[in-house]
This record gives sequence, structure tokens and C-alpha cells, in this order.
Amino acid sequence: MKIDLHTHILPERWPDLVERYGYPGFVRLEHHAPCRARMLIGDRFFREIEDNCWNPQRRIAECDECGVSMQVLSTVPVMFSYWARPADGLDLSRLLNDHLAGVIAAHPRRFTGLATVPLQDVTLAIRELERCVAAPAAGGLGLPGVQIGSNVNGENLGDASLFPFFEAAAALGAAVFVHPWEMLGRDRTERYWGSWLVGMPAETCLAVTSMLFAGVFQRLPSLRVAFAHAGGSFPGTIGRIQHGFESRPDLCAVDCAVPPRAHLAQRGADGRVTPARFYVDSLTHDEATLRGVISLFGAERVALGSDYPFPLGEARPGAMIEAMRDLDERVRSLLLGGTAREFLRLAD
Amino acid sequence: MKIDLHTHILPERWPDLVERYGYPGFVRLEHHAPCRARMLIGDRFFREIEDNCWNPQRRIAECDECGVSMQVLSTVPVMFSYWARPADGLDLSRLLNDHLAGVIAAHPRRFTGLATVPLQDVTLAIRELERCVAAPAAGGLGLPGVQIGSNVNGENLGDASLFPFFEAAAALGAAVFVHPWEMLGRDRTERYWGSWLVGMPAETCLAVTSMLFAGVFQRLPSLRVAFAHAGGSFPGTIGRIQHGFESRPDLCAVDCAVPPRAHLAQRGADGRVTPARFYVDSLTHDEATLRGVISLFGAERVALGSDYPFPLGEARPGAMIEAMRDLDERVRSLLLGGTAREFLRLAD
Repeated sequence: MKIDLHTHILPERWPDLVERYGYPGFVRLEHHAPCRARMLIGDRFFREIEDNCWNPQRRIAECDECGVSMQVLSTVPVMFSYWARPADGLDLSRLLNDHLAGVIAAHPRRFTGLATVPLQDVTLAIRELERCVAAPAAGGLGLPGVQIGSNVNGENLGDASLFPFFEAAAALGAAVFVHPWEMLGRDRTERYWGSWLVGMPAETCLAVTSMLFAGVFQRLPSLRVAFAHAGGSFPGTIGRIQHGFESRPDLCAVDCAVPPRAHLAQRGADGRVTPARFYVDSLTHDEATLRGVISLFGAERVALGSDYPFPLGEARPGAMIEAMRDLDERVRSLLLGGTAREFLRLAD
Repeated sequence: MKIDLHTHILPERWPDLVERYGYPGFVRLEHHAPCRARMLIGDRFFREIEDNCWNPQRRIAECDECGVSMQVLSTVPVMFSYWARPADGLDLSRLLNDHLAGVIAAHPRRFTGLATVPLQDVTLAIRELERCVAAPAAGGLGLPGVQIGSNVNGENLGDASLFPFFEAAAALGAAVFVHPWEMLGRDRTERYWGSWLVGMPAETCLAVTSMLFAGVFQRLPSLRVAFAHAGGSFPGTIGRIQHGFESRPDLCAVDCAVPPRAHLAQRGADGRVTPARFYVDSLTHDEATLRGVISLFGAERVALGSDYPFPLGEARPGAMIEAMRDLDERVRSLLLGGTAREFLRLAD
């Protein structure tokens, strides 16, 4: 059972949102060639995509080629649109979530999914989350969780304004997958794809540290959160982050007295490992880095994620894990599917 | 022979720079208690320091306690003042460099140093670099190199405007130590010391990738550059950076066709390791991270650096390397001093 926690999907078509809401900034698709489309914001080109971004049949065919049993679908982060008017954000979220649920309902053994919610208004976000995770019998979409951006109009995830949302996710048992978007420092990272190669890992690290230092994990023991791209630059800079916490508690320990490392995997005197307090996907593109991530988090907290179908993703989801021949079977099985099943509370 | 490549020093006193140059923004010291001072910018508190930031005797005593034979002195990055008028930047650089040279001349076996230069004007920066590295017999300061900031008023180090400076450094044989400052994304990192814990590693990574992608190392084969904090978040995100280069050459390979990994240590079929094309210091605060850094760069490119005397530094310079008992003697000796000697071309 190979599960890909980190994949993106769009509807093939959606209404003209600029017309629907009456102001610009929303993404539209231009199907300019067979099986290809451009994502545009106004007339600004954002990304070229292929039909594996919207066509479930092609996705399933590509999964079969790579032995992926199930994809966890989520929208493309540019669709979060947290900058929009709250009611419009809710409307767009409903549109995307209903599409997601439709794809899953048609192929329930191959797809599950993470909702999107209008985090620019926490009350509306909670209302939509409730609808998305409620069972179909109760009028809901039956989704196991939600994907959120790494910041909400510049507010980091540890901000007090967002705490009620995490509280609701914990109460609902909804898994939360954090994806970087609207990266810090974009004025400095325009050349050489810098926003994606330097900005995104930093943005994810900022999301991790913001939640750690704000004490979100301490205050909500049952909340399950996973970070994309193996936590970005967090694992590789944990030494500095922990040392910063220890050397300047006046700046770092103001809202949570528990140090960063105490949230990571703990090795007991008996050799037993207690896994980390939160999850990451496996997308490092480097075996040595992934080994370090597994050591920091425990295999119970690392789930295959490929960023399918985008070029910065792993072309053959799971190939790197499968190539690490020395991993023991239990670890490999957790990475390839077990951790995602547990994170999403998927039925056997 | 234990050499600490990364230490900061200030003069105990300097002229009132606001008065000297006629506009605000410069740092001043307020000696408010015995052996203590506040660094202030206008009336804004920047940092509290102790006399080990300016007193060579106390520095030598602390070195003796930790077995450090030699410190490589450099100014505190906030003093770079690249935002100032070029002539004032040159004047301030001369003041700081003359102080540095004086401390070194008084204790030539315990200190060497890296100059600072007014990079807001590359012509003046080169002129001051020439003065700093020229032999005392020729009227120079005899310094082995220069410390520069990770960006110049928001321009990354790969920017074409800065290339003549690197060209001059290569021609002069001056070592270049890159220190993060004026971090990207400061609007997002105010809480929890975020600029120092998340911003600085990202800023350093941006400096590394900017120079790599711009082809600075390719175009200047003899240039020697070291990055502070073990390259920041670069080593832990090398997989993503390399994969980005491979998957979107249209964005990444526009100025240099040599991939990022080709600049790192190469293992030949015979098992011999060719070290990386550039250097880093050892400041990771995490053994596993440092092992990864040594593997990526080769021990010939990793030099003990402690960030002395600041709290985010290693309290006992070299303690972590010394605690890594399984390192072989050659590697340990390179890390603790050999690499720095070679980087700085110190005489035996």
C-alpha cells in the first residue's frame, strides 16, 4: 500500500472568478493546446500544467506505473486566495472541495483528499472544515483533513488569531497539511527560481518554528499537523533553532517553555524511540537529508509526498525511499504508506 | 593549532558617526556599566555586549581557556553600513580596519583578521581591499582577506554589479568570508528571534545560491569564499536546489551551466575526494548536521567558526568537533585549524 500524501489537483474548468466576485487576482485556466493549460492571474502567466493536473484517469494511469495505490489530493496553493473577501474565499473553497469530493467519490480506492478553507476568516474556515470532514451521511464530504498555507496574509501560523482554527481541527480529528505559499523575502528571490528553492524551505521552517514557539502543539495534544517538503529548512537548521531557544529564552521561550527538540523524536534509555510531535513528508531529493529527517522525526512521522504533478516533485513517487535498500521493512512500510494512513486515520 | 575563523570584534570607542557624517543610522556604543556596553542605533537598542567584544586581553584569556590558538577577527555585521554614502562607508571601513590591524599587530600570534569594505561602491571597496591586504612594508595592513555581507542594499552577491569586487579579491588572493546581514523577510520574522533563527540561514543560502547560479565560482577559479553558519540552510536543502536546477534549467541555468552539486565534494571511482569549490564554517550546533556538511564539502573546506563572543555562537569554540571522537585525526586537524590556515594562506 503506497500512499502519496502530497499531490495537487485542479478542476478542469471553473467559473470566471473575476466576474463572479467582481475584482481581480484570481487564477484562471487557459486550455491552449490538447491536454495542456496555462494558469493565469489576470494576464500574468503563473504556470503551465498538463492534464495530469485535472484528469483522474491519467493520474490513475501514472500511479499504476509507479505503484502508487492512493493519492492524497489537495489544491494548488495559489488557489488558497486568503487575500480575497472572506465570503468569496468560502465560495471558492466550497467549489474546490466539492470538486475534490467528486473525484474521490468516483475513485474511492485511489484517492482521498485534503480540503481548502478560507483562513482569512477563521469562523468561516471552521464552518467549511466542519462540512468537509463530516460524514456524507450527515451532509458532509467525508474528507480526512485540510491543506493550509504557511501564512495567512503575512500572519504566521502561531499567531493567536489562528489558534481557534487549530483548536477546531483538533476537536474534529482533522489532519492539517501545511504547504508553503506567499514566501517571505520575494523581493530578494526573483532570480534563479529563488522563491521556490530558497524561499519555500525558509517559509516552511518559519511555519514550523512559529507553531512550536507559540506552543500550538503543547496546547493541543491531539492536533495532527504535517509540513510539506520534509519541513523545509527546519531539519537542517535545528541545531541553531534549539541553541537560539536555549541562549535567548527572553526572545524565544515567551509563549512556550518546551524547547524545539523536545517536540522531535526521543530515544529512551531502553533504545525505544518516541516519534516527533508532528509530521513531515519525505520530499528532500537527497537520501542523506531524508535519513537525517527520519532520525529527527521517527519513521512514524515521515510520509511519502511527491508534489505530483509538478517538476519540483519526485518524478517517480517513492523511488528514493525504495532505492534506500538498507531501510528495514517496518521503516520502509511506514514511509511508503503507514505514516500517511495513521496521519489521515484511513480505514484499513 | 586551533583557529577560530568566525569571531567578531569592535573598537572600545569610536567617533560619533552621526556627527561625523551628518545623518543618522550609525551604531554607537554606550558604556553603561563596567565591562558592558549597549550598541545603539539612534535611541534604538541593538545589542548588549561585554568587554570580550573589544578587549584583546579578555579575548586571549578566553581563548586560552578553550585552547584556541588564534582568532580571526572581523567586525560585527551591523557595522557594514552599506546603506551609507560611499565616502562615509570608506571612512568607517578605514577606521575599523585600522583598529583591527592595530589589535593584530599587538598580538600577531593570537589574532589575524578580515577587513570590511564599502561594497555600496565597488571601486572604493576594491581600493580599500587593496590597502588592507597589501604588505605593511608597502603601506598596507597585511590582512589575509575580507568579511562581506550577504547582500548589498538588497542586491544578492551574484549580481553583476559586484563581480568586479570578486575579481579583485581573486587577483589579490584575498579570502572572502560571507556573513548574513539585512536578512530577507524581516517583516515576517519579528517574533521569536525569527530573523536570526530562520532569516539568517535562509539569507546565507540565498548568498550561496546566488553566487553559484551566477557562475562566480566558475568564472573565478582562484577565488576563495567561505560562508558563515556552515552555509545556513544550503546544506540541508541541497537536494531541492539541485533538483530545481535540473528540472527548470530555463530558470536556474541561465548564467551558469554547472549544476550546484558539481561545486561540492566529489568522490572519484578510486575513493579519493576532491573538496568543494567553496568553504563554510562549522557552526551548526548539531553533530549530525556537521557530519553532513563535512560529507558535502570535504573537511578541507570546513573551518571551525564559533561566532564568538555572541550568544548564538558556540560557547566553547571547537567543543563539538572535539567531542566527535570518531573523526579521524586528519579530519579533526583540518576542521580545527588546517582548513582556516589554507583558506587564509597563513604562513606556518
